[in-house]
Amino acid sequence: MSDAGFEAALAAARDGLAEGGIPIGAAILRGGEVIAVGHNERVQSGDPIAHGEMAALRAAGRQRTYRDTVLYTTLAPCAMCSGTIIQFKIPRVVVGEARTFPGEIELLRSRGVEVEVLDDSRCVEMMRDFQRERPALWAEDIGE
Amino acid sequence: MSDAGFEAALAAARDGLAEGGIPIGAAILRGGEVIAVGHNERVQSGDPIAHGEMAALRAAGRQRTYRDTVLYTTLAPCAMCSGTIIQFKIPRVVVGEARTFPGEIELLRSRGVEVEVLDDSRCVEMMRDFQRERPALWAEDIGE
Repeated sequence: MSDAGFEAALAAARDGLAEGGIPIGAAILRGGEVIAVGHNERVQSGDPIAHGEMAALRAAGRQRTYRDTVLYTTLAPCAMCSGTIIQFKIPRVVVGEARTFPGEIELLRSRGVEVEVLDDSRCVEMMRDFQRERPALWAEDIGE
Repeated sequence: MSDAGFEAALAAARDGLAEGGIPIGAAILRGGEVIAVGHNERVQSGDPIAHGEMAALRAAGRQRTYRDTVLYTTLAPCAMCSGTIIQFKIPRVVVGEARTFPGEIELLRSRGVEVEVLDDSRCVEMMRDFQRERPALWAEDIGE
């Protein structure tokens, strides 16, 4: 397995952080190639549905199928992003970490999505720093 | 209960149809007032995540909370839109119809969302016509 997808997702998250945004990034791969990346855009564009995964799917544009794709994301997908993965029939998701936010990994697995959690320390530290520094923004992003 | 939300959602769906798009609309209400509307934008803007509910949420912009809102939609919410309703903690959803697409109403209810299905014949006819006339576009929109 290539790490290209994970590195692209992590780079997207860092780009978002550098813009003053929420540091969560995602990448969509087909045949081992990155076809789209995205990061959370709540701060940058005021768009509450633009989580990293959603921004990457938007960037990918219309697709005939997602059954041959893999979604990488730096953080466990929330219910919105998990529902989207299920609806779009993305078969495999690689998650940077699920320590700082548990997401809906069990929902994904219960619907047949293969989920791998890398437990990457760079992702954990990035989110821990962000959650400590911007607790209100983080709460808003997850609907708390 | 006011019908303002349902009428706004239906009008949005018809606007989308008039633009050559997929005729599904949504409205978000707070205190009985429509604060945002949206319709599916897959055709119009090439955005696969812009289902009616998602477009309305994007139009509403950043919100501190959704716990005092009601979401109206002309068609049963798919897994993406249902996951979003769950994540954003929208407590109540009014659905125009669930005959032409079952959506994820049971998932919503299992997570504590109150769902009312109106079974409105205008919504059913609009979707039946669309599904008959544009089967490939409809399949694409629901990830089939």
